[in-house]
Order: sequence, then C-alpha cells, then structure tokens
Amino acid sequence: MAPIRLGMVGGGKDAFIGGVHRIAARIDGEFALVAGALSSTPERSRDSGQALGLAPERCYGSYDEMAEAEAARPDGIQAVSIVTPNHMHAGPAIAFLKRGIHVICDKPLTATMEQAEELADAIRASEALFILTHNYTGYPMVRQARDMVAAGELGALRVVQVEYPQDWLADAAETTGTNKQAEWRTDPARAGAGGSIGDIGSHAHNLACFVSGLKVESLAADLHSFVPGRKLDDNAHILLRFGGGVRGMLWSSQVATGNENALRLRIYGEKGGLEWAQEDPNYLWFTPFGQPKRLLTRAGSGASDAANAVSRIPGGHPEGYLEGFANIYTGAAAAIRAVEAGATPDLSLLPGLDAGLDGMRFIAAAIRSSQADAAWVTL
Amino acid sequence: MAPIRLGMVGGGKDAFIGGVHRIAARIDGEFALVAGALSSTPERSRDSGQALGLAPERCYGSYDEMAEAEAARPDGIQAVSIVTPNHMHAGPAIAFLKRGIHVICDKPLTATMEQAEELADAIRASEALFILTHNYTGYPMVRQARDMVAAGELGALRVVQVEYPQDWLADAAETTGTNKQAEWRTDPARAGAGGSIGDIGSHAHNLACFVSGLKVESLAADLHSFVPGRKLDDNAHILLRFGGGVRGMLWSSQVATGNENALRLRIYGEKGGLEWAQEDPNYLWFTPFGQPKRLLTRAGSGASDAANAVSRIPGGHPEGYLEGFANIYTGAAAAIRAVEAGATPDLSLLPGLDAGLDGMRFIAAAIRSSQADAAWVTL
Amino acid sequence: MAPIRLGMVGGGKDAFIGGVHRIAARIDGEFALVAGALSSTPERSRDSGQALGLAPERCYGSYDEMAEAEAARPDGIQAVSIVTPNHMHAGPAIAFLKRGIHVICDKPLTATMEQAEELADAIRASEALFILTHNYTGYPMVRQARDMVAAGELGALRVVQVEYPQDWLADAAETTGTNKQAEWRTDPARAGAGGSIGDIGSHAHNLACFVSGLKVESLAADLHSFVPGRKLDDNAHILLRFGGGVRGMLWSSQVATGNENALRLRIYGEKGGLEWAQEDPNYLWFTPFGQPKRLLTRAGSGASDAANAVSRIPGGHPEGYLEGFANIYTGAAAAIRAVEAGATPDLSLLPGLDAGLDGMRFIAAAIRSSQADAAWVTL
Amino acid sequence: MAPIRLGMVGGGKDAFIGGVHRIAARIDGEFALVAGALSSTPERSRDSGQALGLAPERCYGSYDEMAEAEAARPDGIQAVSIVTPNHMHAGPAIAFLKRGIHVICDKPLTATMEQAEELADAIRASEALFILTHNYTGYPMVRQARDMVAAGELGALRVVQVEYPQDWLADAAETTGTNKQAEWRTDPARAGAGGSIGDIGSHAHNLACFVSGLKVESLAADLHSFVPGRKLDDNAHILLRFGGGVRGMLWSSQVATGNENALRLRIYGEKGGLEWAQEDPNYLWFTPFGQPKRLLTRAGSGASDAANAVSRIPGGHPEGYLEGFANIYTGAAAAIRAVEAGATPDLSLLPGLDAGLDGMRFIAAAIRSSQADAAWVTL
Repeated sequence: MAPIRLGMVGGGKDAFIGGVHRIAARIDGEFALVAGALSSTPERSRDSGQALGLAPERCYGSYDEMAEAEAARPDGIQAVSIVTPNHMHAGPAIAFLKRGIHVICDKPLTATMEQAEELADAIRASEALFILTHNYTGYPMVRQARDMVAAGELGALRVVQVEYPQDWLADAAETTGTNKQAEWRTDPARAGAGGSIGDIGSHAHNLACFVSGLKVESLAADLHSFVPGRKLDDNAHILLRFGGGVRGMLWSSQVATGNENALRLRIYGEKGGLEWAQEDPNYLWFTPFGQPKRLLTRAGSGASDAANAVSRIPGGHPEGYLEGFANIYTGAAAAIRAVEAGATPDLSLLPGLDAGLDGMRFIAAAIRSSQADAAWVTL
Repeated sequence: MAPIRLGMVGGGKDAFIGGVHRIAARIDGEFALVAGALSSTPERSRDSGQALGLAPERCYGSYDEMAEAEAARPDGIQAVSIVTPNHMHAGPAIAFLKRGIHVICDKPLTATMEQAEELADAIRASEALFILTHNYTGYPMVRQARDMVAAGELGALRVVQVEYPQDWLADAAETTGTNKQAEWRTDPARAGAGGSIGDIGSHAHNLACFVSGLKVESLAADLHSFVPGRKLDDNAHILLRFGGGVRGMLWSSQVATGNENALRLRIYGEKGGLEWAQEDPNYLWFTPFGQPKRLLTRAGSGASDAANAVSRIPGGHPEGYLEGFANIYTGAAAAIRAVEAGATPDLSLLPGLDAGLDGMRFIAAAIRSSQADAAWVTL
Repeated sequence: MAPIRLGMVGGGKDAFIGGVHRIAARIDGEFALVAGALSSTPERSRDSGQALGLAPERCYGSYDEMAEAEAARPDGIQAVSIVTPNHMHAGPAIAFLKRGIHVICDKPLTATMEQAEELADAIRASEALFILTHNYTGYPMVRQARDMVAAGELGALRVVQVEYPQDWLADAAETTGTNKQAEWRTDPARAGAGGSIGDIGSHAHNLACFVSGLKVESLAADLHSFVPGRKLDDNAHILLRFGGGVRGMLWSSQVATGNENALRLRIYGEKGGLEWAQEDPNYLWFTPFGQPKRLLTRAGSGASDAANAVSRIPGGHPEGYLEGFANIYTGAAAAIRAVEAGATPDLSLLPGLDAGLDGMRFIAAAIRSSQADAAWVTL
Repeated sequence: MAPIRLGMVGGGKDAFIGGVHRIAARIDGEFALVAGALSSTPERSRDSGQALGLAPERCYGSYDEMAEAEAARPDGIQAVSIVTPNHMHAGPAIAFLKRGIHVICDKPLTATMEQAEELADAIRASEALFILTHNYTGYPMVRQARDMVAAGELGALRVVQVEYPQDWLADAAETTGTNKQAEWRTDPARAGAGGSIGDIGSHAHNLACFVSGLKVESLAADLHSFVPGRKLDDNAHILLRFGGGVRGMLWSSQVATGNENALRLRIYGEKGGLEWAQEDPNYLWFTPFGQPKRLLTRAGSGASDAANAVSRIPGGHPEGYLEGFANIYTGAAAAIRAVEAGATPDLSLLPGLDAGLDGMRFIAAAIRSSQADAAWVTL
C-alpha cells in the first residue's frame, strides 16, 4: 500500500520532538513526509525542509499557507503532524481539520483551556481524525498492562502510583541562551501554565488512566519551582482519587538529579500488582497475590495479544521509545486508511480529543489546587 | 569485655520481632540475654525462656516482677529490650527506667500520644538510656547517605521521596485466626490509631528525617483501608513539607501486591541525588548533577567512614537486615558502656526519645489530616 | 538528499531478519526499497513484494534476474540487502557485486569456507561496497566501549568474557513443521557446519573483537547438541586467546532456558572494566580500578562522541535493537554516498569482508577444535 | 540448650575470615567461644583472645597446647574452628580430631594433596565430626536451587555456568606490605598451588556440584597470572564435563575490575533454568521452559521448605553472607548435638571430607590441565 502523504508543522532545526515524529512515521513505512511548515520563518522553513528532502515548493512559510496549498493539490497531504510548542497546537490543527486533513498532534492538547475548547469544537466539526501523541501508550507492555487490568487479572483496583522524574532542568538551563527546549518549556506564553505538570505530568496522568481504565475524579496538588527565577513548576506532588475508590499519587519532577526520563507506573488491585518503567520498557512485572513475581517480556512467553500486536521483533531484541511512538503513528495510519475507505476506524487505543481534554483538565486542576495550597479540586 | 546483661519483655513464641532483637543483640557479642518476661502468662513466659536457655528463676510472669527482681540482683540485667505490641511499650519502659535499667524499645514509641508523654517524662527523669530501634538507620549505606547530605554533597535539598510498600495485608489476614502479627497490627487497641502509617509509615518518616537531617513541618495525608472490615489504614498517601522549603511524598501500603518490604528513599538537592532501597541495602546510588550515576557499595571503594564504621565484612559479601539492626544494638552497647563508665555517651546516631516523639507526632498528624480530608496539619 | 534505491534478496513471508533489515534501512530515511527477489519462487516473491508496495515489475523470481534487470535500469537499485539463509549469501552477493551494486549482507558471511573464499574474491574485484550486518556493533554504547578501550581507559587488556545464551531451541522446534527459522538454522545444508556457534557465537566473537580491537589467535572449543536428533551444535563452550596475551571465554547456547537474546560482553584491563548487555543496551557499566562503578547511559552525561554520533534521541528514551541495526545501514549509506561521490568512504566502523572472514575462520576453528576434543586451534 | 563450647585456631588481628566465623557461630546462639590459639605467637594470641573476652588461661600459644589442655578440662571445648591459611589446616585439624573434638574448618581442605590425604585419614579414624565451611551452600536460595534440581523441576540437566570474579588483586596488593590477606593468598607456601582457583574457584566448583548434585568428571583449564610477579594464578578459565553428559564453564578471577565478590551460578535443564548471584542472595530466578521468568525470594511466596528451614526473618528483610555462613555453623551444631546424644547426625547438607577432597582434586586437576596447555584431565 502506498504510504500516507504527511505534512509537518514545526520540527525544524533545534527541535527535538519533530525528529521523533518523523522517525515514528517512517518506521513501519506507513507515511511519507512530503510537505512542511517547519519553522517560524519562511527561509528557515525552506532550509529545514530541503535538508529533509522535501520539494522546495512544498516547504511553506506558514501553516495557513500550507493548509491552503496542500488542500488544493490533487496529491496534497492526507495528514499533518503538529510538533510545535503547546501554544501553537490549536491554530494549525484547526486550519487542517477545517480542510479535512487528518491531524496528528503532540501533547498536551494546547497551552490554555480556551485554546482547548476552540480546538475541541473544530475536531467535533471535522470529519478528519485528530490523534494526540500520548506516545507512552504505544509501548507493547503498556498495552498488555491495560489489557490485563481490563481482563480483571488484578481484581478490583486499589492503588495507582505514577511518577515521572527527570533532571534536565535541575539548573537554570533556560537562561543559558543555548537550550531552546528549556526556553519554551519553562515559558508560560509558549508552554501554558503548567511546567513539569504540563510537560511530563500530563504523560504520567495519561498513562495511569490508559492502563487503569479510570479517570481522576479529584486531586490535591503541591506544585513548586525550585530553580530560582523559574516561572513554571519544576516539581509536582499530587494526591489522586480515581473513580471506584481507587487512590493514587503522581510525582513529576524536572529537578530529580539522577533521573533521565524515569516515567514509572505501579498499579495494585485485590488480586495482583503490575509495575512498568519506561526506561526499561520491554519488561512488565506482574505479581499475582500470593505467588512469585513474574517478569513478562515483550514478545516473550508471557506476552499478550495486545502486546504482540504492536511488537515487531522477537523477545530479547529490545524495542524502545521510537518503536512505541511509531505504534501511535501506525495505529493512526490504520485509522486514516479506514476513514478514507469509508469504514469505521478503530480508535479504542488511540489517544484523541477525550484524552486531550482530560489532560488539560488535569493540568488546570493541579494548578488550581496548588494555588489553593493543595486543596482538593474536582475534575 | 563481658557482654552486657540483657532482659527482654515480649518476644515469646509467635512473635516476629523478638527473635530479630535477640539475634541483633548477639551478632557482635555485646549482649547476653539472661532474663525475660517473654509472654503474657507466667507459664508461657517460662516455656519461651527455657527454650532460649534462660535460667528458670529469671523467666518472669510479668515485667513488673522482672523489673523488681532484676534490680535487686547483683548480677541483674543492665538493659532490657521491649518487643511487645505498641500499647505495651510505655508500661514496661517506665518500670525499668525507674530502676535505672537502660531500655531498648521497639518502635513506634507507644500506641497513643498520652502514653508517649508519660513515657517521655519517665525517660527525662531517668539516668538510664532509652534507645528506640528505628533499625533502618543502622544500615551502613543509610549512614553514608546521611553523611553525604550533611557534608553538602547534594547541595541544598529540594525533594524527598520515601515509600514503604508491602503486600502481606492485601487480604484479611487478621481474620484467619492464624496470623498473630496481622491481628495486633490491625487492632487499634494494641497498635494505636495508625495502621500502615504507624507500623511502616513511621519507619519511612524516620528514615527520611534521619538521612535528610530535616523535620517534617506540615503534611497532608490521605489514609485509607482497602480491605473490608479492617479498622486501621492499610494505605497512606502523604504530601510532606520539611524545613528549609524541602518538599516530599510518603507512601506506605500493606496492600501493594508484589512488594515484600520495599522501603525506599530518594533524596534530591541542587547538586546531586541519592537513592537507596532496603531490599538491596548494600547499594547506594549517587548522581552528582551532570555526571554519570555511581553505584556506591557497602565496604566498597566509594564507601565512607560512616558506612565503614558499621560494616563487618568486605564489599560484595552482603550484609542485611539483621546486621543493620545489630548496628543499633551495638551502638546502644557503646552508649551503655560509656554511661556505666561515667562518660558521656555519643547518642548522635542512636534514635531515642526525640525520634520517638517525632514519630508519634507524625502519626497523629497524618491521622488528623486524613480525618480532615487531607487538610494540611502542622507538626 | 534522495534515499538510496535498495533491493532485497530474501525476506519474504515467514522470514524474521528481512523485516528487520527493512525497518533498519528506513529509520533514518536513507534508503527506499524499490525492488526485491524476496522468495524462492516467482509467485511468492511477487506476493511478498506487493505486500511491501513494490512495483510488480520489480518483484523478481530470482536474484540473477533481478541483478540483470536492475543493473540495466537507469533508476536501478544502488544497493541490495541479502537476507537469505547462510548458504544463499555468496551467490547473490557475487551477482550484484559484479554489476557494481553495493551489497549489504546478513551474517555470517557464508555457510562454508569455500563460499567465503569465492565471495571474498568477488568483493576484492568489485568497486562496490560489501557491508556485513554485524548489527550489535551499531549500538551506541558498544561504539563507546570500543572507543574507551582504544583510548586506554581500561589500560592493557587482560580478560574478555563474552556470552550469547538463548533458549528458543531448548526443544526440537525444528521438527514441528511450523518454525521455519528453527528449520534452516539447524540444517547444515543451509546454515553451514555451525549451529549456535554460527548463528550467535559468531556475533559474540565479532562483538568481542570489535570492542577489544583484538583478534582471536587460538581457541579450544567444546561444542555439543543437547536436543536429540539435532544435527548442529546448540551449545558452545570456548576458551579464547587473543593477541597481546589477553584471554577469554565465549559461551553460546540455544538451550539456556530463561535467556531470550542475552548477548553480554565484559572486558577487563589493568585500569578498569566494562560490562554491556544487549537486552539493556542503553547502559554501559564502567569501573575504573579503585573507584565506584559508573552507569554510563546512551546520550547521558557520560556518553562519548562515538556513542552520541549514532544516537537519535535524549538519554532515558531507550533506543533498541532496530536503532542499533539502523546504525549499520545509515553508516552504509554514508559510505555508499561517499563512493558515489568519488570520495573515500570511512569504513572504520563498518563490518565488511575482514570481519566476515574472521567470523568464518572462528566458526571453522571452533568446529575443528571441538572435533579434536577441544584441542587448541590457531586461527 | 547450652551453647556448644567452641575454640578457634587462627583468627587473630588482621585476619578476615576468623571474625566471620565468630559471628556465624554466634548468630543463632548455638556456640560460645571459650578458647583460642588465635595467632602464631603466644603473646599475640593472648592479646587477641583477651580482646574477644576469652579467659587468659584459655588463650594458647599453639594449637597443640590448646588441644592437649582443652581435652583435659571437664569444661573443655567441644568443637574447634580452624581459620588459618590453607597450609595450616591439616595440622590443627588432626590434633583436635585425635582427641575427639569436632572440627569446623575453613576451605579449601588443605594446601596440598599430601596434607589432604593425611587429614582424610585422621577424619576417617576419628569419631568427631569434620565440617568444611563451604559457606555459600548455606544460603537459603542455594538450598532451594539444589532441592528444585533434585526434584526434577529443571528436567535432565544440560549446562552449568559458574563464575566467581573479584577485583581486589587487580594490582600487586601483595607487595605493599599492608595487605596480609593478599600476601598469604598469593603465596604458594601458604595457599597451595592454586591462586584464584584455590581461593574462589574452589567455592565456585563446590557450589556448582552442590546445586547440580553432579561431580566434575573432567576439565580443561587455562590458568594465568596477569599481575607481573604474581606466583599463583589470578584468573582461571575452565571447561567442565560433569556426569550425565552435562557440560559447563567455570571462570574465577581476582583481576576483573568492577567485581567485588560476584559468585554466580546458572544451571539449565530440559525443562527449565535457574540463576543465582551471591551479591543478591535473597533472589533466585526460575524459568520453566515456555513460561515467564519468576523471581523467587527468600521466605517469599515461592520459597521452598529447604530455603525456609534456614531463613530467620520474613521476605524482603534481606539476609546476607553472615547468615548463610551461620547456617553452616547451626547445621554443624545440630550434627554435634546429635553425635553427643548418641544419635546419627544428618550430614546431607553439610560439606565435609568428601566435598573437601573433591575440591582438592578439582584444584589439582585444574593446575595439571593448565600446565598441559588446557588438556583434558580426568578427576
């Protein structure tokens, strides 16, 4: 099958996540990048595009221009990846959705709740798909964990512990003038009102909900900025209450020295417990109550259909972050092909508007709670 | 040097912690057990005592009888270990302290705040020592962690994450009629008002304070009993604020299936981070900011004087829980010998009344906060 | 830059390694698969090709046909991947090399020494490149290990321990009729005279030599087939003597239950030691003598230029087997582009004929030694 | 029960293993140290003895004097621990055995085969027990591994991989004048003809045999001294053939930088595999073929009777090296008490003369093989 024609907004030089999206789109051969508005100025956009092998006439100076031009081409893009800072999600997404072009958008949904609502309207009004790259849900063993919970292997859930510590902002990296990632991710104008809570806490929240199948009903959050001068939180401590009486904790931090990208989920029910760590993603620890702990491995003898469906290679041959990310893209491709064939796409495992709004509400609630000195806030 | 003559209150058959205290007292040859009021009835006390090789006349039917008789003997006990359930700490401790016999007491201090205050008065009034077996502070790498923090190797502290999950109470073990440990530890009359928070949360709190050198100033706690019919909390989620603007989280659980005794401390400062896990106690992970993680090992090339002072054997020969516990006993022996020689004992590393009261206040505050739906409570 | 036009021999349905090569070729966008002789019959080749989106006329029934046709096209393939069983390496490789088409070939070089020599002649006679996918050398932390050794960070080397245990052939999987991988890899006619030693021992040997910078001078091997009826060794125990007085051991096994793909290298010198495990490839353990062990992580603060040069994403975002494999492909692409531009390609890190011949000699020596009851054999 | 009266030969200041024996004897309260010939001169022996609280008249200047005097006392020692360098095992052992005093002796049996045979005669002629402290067999999870093998949980065995790397002799520690341990363990006159092979290889050999229930039938060994001037091997690479067609490898090293005391056993059979590492001794990995790996923990839900019989405390409370060592002593105590009660002692799990002779034959064979350039030698 011919690859889906893909455009990209953002992802020029100095960007991190744009390159990730491009590889993820490419791994399974489902997409071909053919157009881009990669940077905020036409010249840089063209430079970046040419480095990626795009035709010069499809390197656009703005997303609006791109949306219009591509929509008019018979071989125009079928889908677009939006990989800009958070405040630049809604604008391009709406522009492409309006024209029936499917959108694959980096998380969180937007920088503000207002933008989120505007985008939500556009998504609801469009026949095109909107996929949010909560990429950690693409890991095979995360899929397996979700299935095991859903199948009742843990019994009724009780406790969900999720954490996402990093250390790359342990000093004032945003003031050095050399770290663009640090700059926009600590800037309220571009990132929104959440610092660690928006950047990584939202991933942790999404992962906990994805695996548990639950929603956070209320939370009490203690957010803090440890690095002097930083405008957004770089550490968040949150008490969680999920539906069904399940309780949990969420910790996100950008100042926990010794942690690179240590997203970790632990989930306990009446009959068993599961533990998963993003840095060692091919392993899933499962303990049925009263039995020894078992090490389930991707594509290994304990792997489930849900995991195997998104595995490419045998057990012991580690798949990583890019493969997990690619599973979102390949899932999106299947959904896009279904829509284009007039069929109903299977969106059950693909994060979209609902996950995005849940994330925005979670971030907003955490900030509101923290401003009220960790008072409970209902989502 | 002749071993210190030791008595024991509690620790008869079916007890867990009594046997631990006896081994800990014995490992370094510093104590000899010579008397006991080991059970609540004279006959069972005598049975247990004889099984341990005690002279029949020194197997007492009650701690009062024992205190009186031993105080009167020229070869009477110099110290006593109190290893009864929490509600039976204050009574015997006071009885022995009054007679100038040093007390080594299991934690938490008492079952109630009232008992704690009564005991505190007795401790302050006595010339004998009072040592509380917060045994996890005896691990060599915990000592090293404390020293590294004190020496500024982490810089100004920021975040303290401590957790203590277990799973042995994931079902209603207290109702089977065969698990005495489960029975008293879930019984408010014997354990006090704290369940997981009193039994293990207090260890976690103590460890965090011991290593950080900080006190908890306020907390917001969400305690819960997941097992139907259980009277005390079996899971506690707590937000912590320490002195100096340091923030943290504490999680204790007895229902986290797959965790045996997974006490774990992580502590982060401006300049570095430390991570330690009780189940693998010979390792301490240290990451100076911007450098690779280092695995410091007990008695290894990165071990400090503080760790080496309480190590017995070379690196790679694992020491465990009993050795860590023994370090409290051997520290107590040194202090007792100093007192008996008229010198000033070094109590800097030995948990005593202050740690005990801090623990009681912590437990009480957590319960009060939880009753107020996780409102902040100042300690 | 336009992707390099790639063909593939082998890699139809039921093949494992063909799919791996295709993803590896695609990850960095350096190759586009445009032609194939994917199966041994024209029909199946066409079916497989169409499933991969190849133009029907470029799905060939044989490699000869493909070599001739593609060489004649103005847009013919520039390079070909050979992913057939071992006995089918030499034939196609020679056919393409003759026509100046670059060859990327799965390892080991060939099934027999005779084939190896014939192929060697063709490689030497061709101006096209020949790359052997000893993919484990593509892992960033393996590159770093090699660099650290070369830079003298371990001092003079002493001991090299390498092992590659698996368990997928612990029972007679080749007799079930459903496991094509097991069938050809245990069949002397297709795999050659080496079983585990050829399939995975050759990887272990290559890795040890790549990192140490040394060659095996002599070996004493004890090969054995544990599964009744198996024609090739499924376990190999080998004593190694490298140049410079370095000694080592190599263990390969397909019957070591509990091991999926547990290639592991440990290397020790006067000044330090390194340890790396394929299943957790983003970590490299380094211990300078007399100092604590350090955990070096891919793209982390201890990562070297050599590692960073082949890393795509930040530390803590695990890269895996496919990314390591892709590093061979992307390295091959750079070399191919250099050749096509008339420049001298940098082949210093790319396994080719030399590594292939070393591997063949190693396999042959191991078999000869084992036949002589583990007598020393000089390579 | 009254503790068994114990004497000790060796174990004065600067000794490592003497202190270990004393703690091991004390942990379960089964022995009381009452006499000693702790050093090679009477004065130092007395000094060391008094530091340990021995009565001055029971601090002897030589083992002969001690044997004679203690045998004559009504309260004389019932057992003696011999913790001298290897060349000083046979002499004292014979002296005490002759007088009916039970002997607990450090391994290996002796420094030379001649001494071993002389000692064997004395053991066979005595009614006293002879226990060899192959302490690693005392670990609970090692006992469990042995039981699981014996119970057929692995099926017919195939492969045994055992290794014991250390790094404490990676430089010429024996020449500094400050490391007595290094001095005698690298001195053929005191250690015997084996360096690493005698000191730690013998432990590895013993462990492999203990768990597998097999004997080594032949071996091919490549021994080497890497540190210039060293007289004994500091690295040994050995191919093993056990009874029943089982094959294996043994690696011992004192120059493998980054390894403290990394004894590790892996054992694979038709139906499953087991892996155990001394530095993390509370864990035993078990993989039944075709199922996920299971983490069996000491005193955990997968622990067997054999493990529980030698465990003191609950799972998750790590026991270590001293506890494992104590299990040998406590087993010895039970045997001694049985003998003294006229009953038949259970020696099935206690290493004694047979294990000692097997060890000596193993060391001798390894040296002979290595001298013949790794020729096969039958044991």
